[in-house]
Amino acid sequence: MGQARQAALLAKDASRPMGLLSEEQRNRILEVMADALRMHSSAICAANAQDMEAARAKGTKESLLDRLYLDEARVEAMAQGLESLAALPDPTGRVLERRTLPNGIELSRVTVPLGVVAMVYEARPNVTADAAGICLKSGNACVLRGGSLAIHSCVTIAHVMHDAAVDAGAPRNCITIIESTDREETGELLSLRGLVDVLIPRGGAGLIERCVREAQVPVIETGTGNCHVYVEKTADFDMARAIVMNAKTQRTGVCNACESLLVDAGIKDQFLPLMLADLAGAGVVIHGDQEARAAVTSSCALDEEARSLVASHFVDATEEDWGTEYLDLEISVRSIRGGVQEAIDHINRYGTHHSEVVVTQDASVAEAFCRGVDAAAVYVNASSRFTDGGEFGLGAEIGISTQKLHVRGPFALEALTTYKYVMRGEGQVRP
Amino acid sequence: MGQARQAALLAKDASRPMGLLSEEQRNRILEVMADALRMHSSAICAANAQDMEAARAKGTKESLLDRLYLDEARVEAMAQGLESLAALPDPTGRVLERRTLPNGIELSRVTVPLGVVAMVYEARPNVTADAAGICLKSGNACVLRGGSLAIHSCVTIAHVMHDAAVDAGAPRNCITIIESTDREETGELLSLRGLVDVLIPRGGAGLIERCVREAQVPVIETGTGNCHVYVEKTADFDMARAIVMNAKTQRTGVCNACESLLVDAGIKDQFLPLMLADLAGAGVVIHGDQEARAAVTSSCALDEEARSLVASHFVDATEEDWGTEYLDLEISVRSIRGGVQEAIDHINRYGTHHSEVVVTQDASVAEAFCRGVDAAAVYVNASSRFTDGGEFGLGAEIGISTQKLHVRGPFALEALTTYKYVMRGEGQVRP
Repeated sequence: MGQARQAALLAKDASRPMGLLSEEQRNRILEVMADALRMHSSAICAANAQDMEAARAKGTKESLLDRLYLDEARVEAMAQGLESLAALPDPTGRVLERRTLPNGIELSRVTVPLGVVAMVYEARPNVTADAAGICLKSGNACVLRGGSLAIHSCVTIAHVMHDAAVDAGAPRNCITIIESTDREETGELLSLRGLVDVLIPRGGAGLIERCVREAQVPVIETGTGNCHVYVEKTADFDMARAIVMNAKTQRTGVCNACESLLVDAGIKDQFLPLMLADLAGAGVVIHGDQEARAAVTSSCALDEEARSLVASHFVDATEEDWGTEYLDLEISVRSIRGGVQEAIDHINRYGTHHSEVVVTQDASVAEAFCRGVDAAAVYVNASSRFTDGGEFGLGAEIGISTQKLHVRGPFALEALTTYKYVMRGEGQVRP
Repeated sequence: MGQARQAALLAKDASRPMGLLSEEQRNRILEVMADALRMHSSAICAANAQDMEAARAKGTKESLLDRLYLDEARVEAMAQGLESLAALPDPTGRVLERRTLPNGIELSRVTVPLGVVAMVYEARPNVTADAAGICLKSGNACVLRGGSLAIHSCVTIAHVMHDAAVDAGAPRNCITIIESTDREETGELLSLRGLVDVLIPRGGAGLIERCVREAQVPVIETGTGNCHVYVEKTADFDMARAIVMNAKTQRTGVCNACESLLVDAGIKDQFLPLMLADLAGAGVVIHGDQEARAAVTSSCALDEEARSLVASHFVDATEEDWGTEYLDLEISVRSIRGGVQEAIDHINRYGTHHSEVVVTQDASVAEAFCRGVDAAAVYVNASSRFTDGGEFGLGAEIGISTQKLHVRGPFALEALTTYKYVMRGEGQVRP
C-alpha cells in the first residue's frame, strides 16, 4: 500500500467526526492553526530554506524560486488567510429546500461536507495552508499532495497545522499529507475511488491535464483560459481599446487574460491600426492574419514610427495560434467577416469555455453573443479579467472551473459540499 | 473513426442550434415526436419483433424478454411520456442569481443546456424515447447507445423521433444513435472528452461500473443501493415491522429496497422473532448473524410452526452478506450492540450511500443517525422506498445519483443543465 492510500484511509476515518464539528468548533480550529503557523514560523522558514537550497542546486529558474520562497511575512499571510476563512459563513448546514410531501413526510435538503477532499498542487508551499483551511472550514478532511520542490516546506506546514487542529478538538488525521515525492503516489491518489470524494488540482496545465485524464475519482477541472475579445463593428473604439489592453496586459500569466482578439472586418481599417499600435507599444507580440497585416501596412491612421513598431511586433498567425494560451505578452488577431455568428463559432471551436468578451453597442449582437458562446462567463463591454472569486464576491476562491458539472466559473467553499435529503416520517410506507 | 465519435461530432454540431430553441419550440418538438411514435407504431413493433425473435433464439430469459417487448400500448406509453415532458417547466433560462457588482457590472447566473448528453442503456427500448425526450426538453443534443438485444427497436424509435423533430424545427442530428452493437463503441463513447458533456448509464450494476471505471467524460453514477433499516431500541415495533416489510418486499428489484436489517441488541429477543416470522412468511431468505439465530430458536414469542418457518428460511450470514445488494426476497440481519454509533459505522462501511432508515422514538438517536450516516437520503420512521423522483415531486426522474458532485439522490431535468455567468458592463476594466 502506497502512502497515498494510507493517507486517504486515515483521512476517511477522520472525515466522519470532522463532519460533525459545529461551525464554532471549526472556526476556532482555523484560528488556532493560524496562531500555530505564526508560532512555528522559524521552523517553517528553516524547512523552506532546505527546499530553496535543493531547488537552487538543481538550477531552478528564478520565477519558480520566487513562488517557492517563504519568509516571516509570507507565513504571516498564510495565518491571516486562515483567519479570513474563519470569518466566512459556514457552507454546511444550509437548508436548500424544505417541504412536506403529500404523504406527510417532511423533506429537507441540507448541505453537508463532501468527506475527503484531495488537493494536488505544485511549488507554492502556501497552498498547503489555504487548501487545508478551506477543507476544514467546510467540514472535510483532506489529503494534500504538494510539489516535490516544496516538499519540506509543505510537510512542515501541514504538521504544524495538523497538531494545532487536533489540540483544538479536530480529529486526528483531519489533515494528511503525502510525504513521499514519488510520482506514483499521485497516480495512486487519482485511483482511490470510494476514498477520495473530490480531487482538485491547483497548478499548471500539465498537472491538470494529468489529473483529468488519469483520475477515477471525481475531479474539478480548473485553469486553462484561451479567452477572446470580439470587437464588433458598432463598438466604441476607445472602450474596445481599453478593454483589450486591460484583458491582455494587466496581468499576463493568468487564466482570465485575453489571448485572442477578433475584429469585425467592417472596422478593421479604422480600428485595427490603433489597437495594434497600443498592443505593440506595450510590447505585445501580435500573431495576426493577413487582413491584420494588410490593415496596418495600408493604414494612414498610423505614422511611420507606429507602423514600424507594429511591424516589428507582428508575426503571421498559424492555425495553432487560434488555440494557444500564451500566458505572456502575446496575442492572436483575426478578422471576422461573418458577423457575430462567425465570432461565436470561432470561440466555441478554439476557446476553453472560460471567459469571452464582446464589445458592441448593438443589443441584439450582445444577446446573440451571450446566448451562443459556450463559456463559464460571457461579458458585454467589460474585461475578461473580472472572472475571479474575489471580483464576483464569492469569498475564498478555490479556483475557476472550466467544467460544466457541479460548479462552473469561479468557485468557493460551496463546491466542497454536497447535500443530503433528510426525510422525517411517522411510519409511512409506500403503497 | 468509430460510430460513437461520428455520432458525437454530429450531436456536437447540433447542440449549438438546439440550445437556442425557445421553450415553446422544444415543447412543440416533443409533441410532434409523440405523434410520430403513434403514427409509426406498427413499424416500431415490427422492428421489435425482429429483436424478440433473435433474443428468443439466443435463449434469453423471460424477465428480460418482457423488458424488451413492445406493443401498441407500450408505444402509446412512450408517446405519452414525451407529452408529459412537454408539460413540465423549462429547466433552462432560470436566473439563479442577479446582482450588480460594486464596479457596476451586472452579474447574472443563468441555467443553460449542457450541450451533448450521452445515454447508455440496456434492453429496454422505451428508454430510447425517454432519454431523447429529456435531452431535447432541456435543450441538449443526445447520443444514444442502446443494448444490443434491443438494437432494431432502439434504432427505429430513434429515427422516427429524429425525423419528426427535424420536421418540427429541431436541428438535424439533435438525436443520434449508435447503430453498431460492437462493444468497442461504448468504450469510444466513454473516451470522448470535449465532445460528450455528460454520460448517464441507465441499467444494471455491471454497466454502471464499466462506465464509471472507463470514462474520461463526466458521468453521473446511478443505481446501486445496499439500503439498511436500523431498528433502534425505542422503536415502535408495529411501525418497524411495517417499514421493514415495505422496504424489503413491496418491490425487490429496485435500488431503494432494503437489503439489510440492523436490530438493537437490547430488543432482539422481543422484536426479532416477530420480524423474522413476518419476513419468512413473505418468503424472504434471511442471512442472519448468530444472535439472530439464537433469538429465534430460544424465542417463546413464536409457536413451533412459526419457528420452523423461520428456520427453513434462515442461513448464516457471511461477511460478504453485509455488502450484498440482493435485489430479491433476501435480507441480511445483524444485531447492533453499540447503539446508534455502531449502526452508523456499519452503514457507512457497507452501504452504498443511497437510502438509509432509522426507526426510533428517540429524537437524539434520529438526529445522530441523520447527521452521521453518509447517504443521499436518510429516513426517520419511513420506508426507504420513497427515494424516487416521483415521490419527491421532481417530475421526470432520470435516475438516482449515488455520487456527491453535481446531483445527489433522485435527479431530473435540472441535472442536464449547467449555468453561465452573463456579465454586462459599460467598459469596465480591472484596476
